[in-house]
Amino acid sequence: MAYEHTSERRIEFSETDMAGLVHFSNFFRYMETAERDFFEAIGLDLINSEPGSVVGWPRARAECKFSAPLRFGDTIQIHLAVKAVKDRALEYQFRIFRKNPDGSRTQAGKGSMTTIFTTMEPDGSLKSSPLTESIRERITPAPEEALARPLDA
Amino acid sequence: MAYEHTSERRIEFSETDMAGLVHFSNFFRYMETAERDFFEAIGLDLINSEPGSVVGWPRARAECKFSAPLRFGDTIQIHLAVKAVKDRALEYQFRIFRKNPDGSRTQAGKGSMTTIFTTMEPDGSLKSSPLTESIRERITPAPEEALARPLDA
Amino acid sequence: MAYEHTSERRIEFSETDMAGLVHFSNFFRYMETAERDFFEAIGLDLINSEPGSVVGWPRARAECKFSAPLRFGDTIQIHLAVKAVKDRALEYQFRIFRKNPDGSRTQAGKGSMTTIFTTMEPDGSLKSSPLTESIRERITPAPEEALARPLDA
Amino acid sequence: MAYEHTSERRIEFSETDMAGLVHFSNFFRYMETAERDFFEAIGLDLINSEPGSVVGWPRARAECKFSAPLRFGDTIQIHLAVKAVKDRALEYQFRIFRKNPDGSRTQAGKGSMTTIFTTMEPDGSLKSSPLTESIRERITPAPEEALARPLDA
Repeated sequence: MAYEHTSERRIEFSETDMAGLVHFSNFFRYMETAERDFFEAIGLDLINSEPGSVVGWPRARAECKFSAPLRFGDTIQIHLAVKAVKDRALEYQFRIFRKNPDGSRTQAGKGSMTTIFTTMEPDGSLKSSPLTESIRERITPAPEEALARPLDA
Repeated sequence: MAYEHTSERRIEFSETDMAGLVHFSNFFRYMETAERDFFEAIGLDLINSEPGSVVGWPRARAECKFSAPLRFGDTIQIHLAVKAVKDRALEYQFRIFRKNPDGSRTQAGKGSMTTIFTTMEPDGSLKSSPLTESIRERITPAPEEALARPLDA
Repeated sequence: MAYEHTSERRIEFSETDMAGLVHFSNFFRYMETAERDFFEAIGLDLINSEPGSVVGWPRARAECKFSAPLRFGDTIQIHLAVKAVKDRALEYQFRIFRKNPDGSRTQAGKGSMTTIFTTMEPDGSLKSSPLTESIRERITPAPEEALARPLDA
Repeated sequence: MAYEHTSERRIEFSETDMAGLVHFSNFFRYMETAERDFFEAIGLDLINSEPGSVVGWPRARAECKFSAPLRFGDTIQIHLAVKAVKDRALEYQFRIFRKNPDGSRTQAGKGSMTTIFTTMEPDGSLKSSPLTESIRERITPAPEEALARPLDA
């Protein structure tokens, strides 16, 4: 039963804006990197796209608090923790850390996201579904400790 | 004294993802379209970028609830309303509406954003500043009615 | 029979990078704005996405020469002209102009794009198709004059 | 003296579009990943952003031919090779390969980019500069063999 994952990536030039910092909308894209890696680590498909049917996780809500800027070339770590497993939804906490040259870490952002397990009907409409057994067997809410734990250097 | 603005734009192909819908991170970029137009309408520069100095509005927090999908080609309206004018910050509410072929509107998202009035120091550090008189003379919090009012068809 | 179209849009903050200019990859996204508007103007669907079938125009080649920078807030015009109508492909020329405060225009980029009329098979593979009659009745190559004509101020 | 570099990365969900494939504009962003890593490997700053001065490499031209689609979750390799070292410019070749589950590689794109060594003047104008000794000591054109060599599996 898994409840957390940490991904690492570099900041790309195209992710900065004219203020010289990472554009804030990209923090939400970084969250998705950790979500993809989390699903991969536990052996689940994040999106199931077959002709006539797409099953995935549209977002119901996303939020982020920004506490330190990120810049081109920075290496970041994105920590995902499962806050809640609902009947038809998952709720995540995300924390984004910048790795500093001295080996320390600075928290750059903290956010959350609620995603709904959804089937896209043939007519294009979206319909939520109960989480499958396969999902319930693999994902469990994180203990309080994991939500607050500082990332190891 | 201004407290709201409505912008309109079309959904671009590059803003969709493989689920066939607008990627949720773009809702935050749509908010910025209304922010730019609001500042323009009241005669203020959103960002002041001169050699050795950048003054702008980094985000402290952003949040969005997604209630209906947006698709390629949709025309959307983005309504900005000022929720609060703080000592060194502005807090906005955003609502994003899809214009339907029959003339009605569907609310696709509702969000908020807190932005900090900030000077970027020569050493690259960020320092918040009190709002200027010029800003205070132009921006005021929206009355309760404006935050909830449905957009006119 | 149509062979050209001009679209207009504003530069968004999120389209800039830390050099203070529009990131060059966005020029290719601006081309798509004109392509969407061109198809709309002549009454054709750019992409036909039904359960079990997607018919669209993947790109075979794209190219752009950059002659002047674009900045946040600029208003641009994107001129599309059809260079060639092939058996299974269309070839476009794009020119991107910045509207200056004095009413003049500065050419910021000139590019081209070749797109292939394509059906996505149920197994996910892509298969090119001959242009339909409906397309051939509406789109024709631009005369030499239209490819070089300066945009009217 | 360096003339090539290979970078590796994963495809993100936000990089796909409603056709289910990576949006073509992202191929140009992948090229930048290899450019950043190439400069880093040879100990040069790709962009030098100090108060009152930005020195970098705006693009004069970019081009890509697309030969195979990329999809969410794919691992790609981006091979940069220096085609030419000019007085004030560098010309690169890029090839993008998808790593297949069986260990083979499929070429998804081949492109080129010309970048101009540029100083941004205090008034915002751009001015090209001769390549510095530091650059000339580190970067040399790739031999013909390196431009065509298949990537090792």
